[in-house]
Amino acid sequence: MSSVRVACAQIAPVVGEGEGNLARARAALEGAAAAGAGIVVLPELATSGYVFRDAAEARTLAAPEPPAEWRELAERHDLVVVGGFCEAGADGALYNSAAIVDASGVLTTYRKAHLWDREQLVFTPGDGRPPVVDTRHGRIGLMVCYDLEFPEWVRVAALSGTDLLCVPTNWPRLPRPEGERPLEIVHAMSAAAANGLFVAACDRCGTERGVDWVQGSVIVSPQGWLAAGPPQESGEALVTADLDLHRARDKSFGERNDVIADRRPELYGDVTAS
Amino acid sequence: MSSVRVACAQIAPVVGEGEGNLARARAALEGAAAAGAGIVVLPELATSGYVFRDAAEARTLAAPEPPAEWRELAERHDLVVVGGFCEAGADGALYNSAAIVDASGVLTTYRKAHLWDREQLVFTPGDGRPPVVDTRHGRIGLMVCYDLEFPEWVRVAALSGTDLLCVPTNWPRLPRPEGERPLEIVHAMSAAAANGLFVAACDRCGTERGVDWVQGSVIVSPQGWLAAGPPQESGEALVTADLDLHRARDKSFGERNDVIADRRPELYGDVTAS
Repeated sequence: MSSVRVACAQIAPVVGEGEGNLARARAALEGAAAAGAGIVVLPELATSGYVFRDAAEARTLAAPEPPAEWRELAERHDLVVVGGFCEAGADGALYNSAAIVDASGVLTTYRKAHLWDREQLVFTPGDGRPPVVDTRHGRIGLMVCYDLEFPEWVRVAALSGTDLLCVPTNWPRLPRPEGERPLEIVHAMSAAAANGLFVAACDRCGTERGVDWVQGSVIVSPQGWLAAGPPQESGEALVTADLDLHRARDKSFGERNDVIADRRPELYGDVTAS
Repeated sequence: MSSVRVACAQIAPVVGEGEGNLARARAALEGAAAAGAGIVVLPELATSGYVFRDAAEARTLAAPEPPAEWRELAERHDLVVVGGFCEAGADGALYNSAAIVDASGVLTTYRKAHLWDREQLVFTPGDGRPPVVDTRHGRIGLMVCYDLEFPEWVRVAALSGTDLLCVPTNWPRLPRPEGERPLEIVHAMSAAAANGLFVAACDRCGTERGVDWVQGSVIVSPQGWLAAGPPQESGEALVTADLDLHRARDKSFGERNDVIADRRPELYGDVTAS
């Protein structure tokens, strides 16, 4: 099997700077392409920034689709682009969305289903499940940030056939014990191993209205180990790993185990109950 | 709220030494009591050892109940004892089981539902869900080793009201990247945080028929951080933490989030499908 270079482009969107953020994403995509990437993940809400004053401000930064330029850049550089954007829904609601885009256009759009903190004051939670799209590199699944901390959601993505789960994120920096890895990365490692899939979580940088970030972009193997990242230094970073995405289709673990086939779904019923 | 000292007694059972293993568990329980513990977790299969030649050998080490002595020790030292034993079922099958015992007797017995590697050649997987028992310290849930790597199973335990999830384990040592924490501990941290509950995983030590162990007993907080362990040195160890188990009933995370209430169970349906 051939491998593809997967890149997380950790950049610093600035809330309110629509044009500036387009330019930042463009530079990141061009930089990733120059570094040989075939799949590039951008952060959550890469078009708008994150720390909105209120829903009204978010609305001024929203659009019905991801930037058309992402498709153009995907075509020019033969990329699959995955990134978050502030979506103005046809229903009038705002969504914290992400899209997978290639030269042919928008392959899928996903609306974040689990909203973090003040996002609840701005966004409507999505009602769709994490999508999976088949690309020539393998099957790419999609969710956003806090979604990754709900093991049911990652399982849904795995059972839908995801090889590489792309997770645009904005991980606000929270206190953690001295010497400890950010818990968001712990979740990403556990989720990858529990489901035997690759995870590429692209975080952001750049303090925004007093909020700082983990800056913890990582690419995780189906065995749960870090294939790349997090960056050693804070700031913009390109985190890359060469992955054979088809490896995620073998869920075996040792001689007699298989992280998916070993499930006992007949016993899990109430997990879905409210 | 008052706190209770929870202890993981990492000991070295020896396969085939029924009387010797009873004595090892007794010494560990007495040591934990002397150290002020109120809840003591022993490893998986603490009565029998782990690396059986075959089912026939396991059968010679099986019993229908956990050792009667655990109840006596629980009474004498005012303990709740949690430990794994090799169960000879009334149905003629062998189970990789664990029990919670106090002065009043066996509060619950659980049969491991997800079997690891050669356990499949010896044991019948359990069909019961992880039990939860109410004690004066709080609600104690129970599962065994590999069970903990199935996020649905931990969620079932959380939704059943578990404050402290006790996990007798025998974690075989697997290769891991230099400097990395054992993945079993990564899973324990992620599971604790995703469900807002305490996890006490008691591992074993002592090379057995060529199999070595992680020796990674840990106690994890509902925020996902290590409250105690893993031991710095290999070998027998008593890992303890003073916990207010009722803290696990507050699932809030920041001002607006709650790791249980934020779930979207109406969207998770197929997670239970085979």
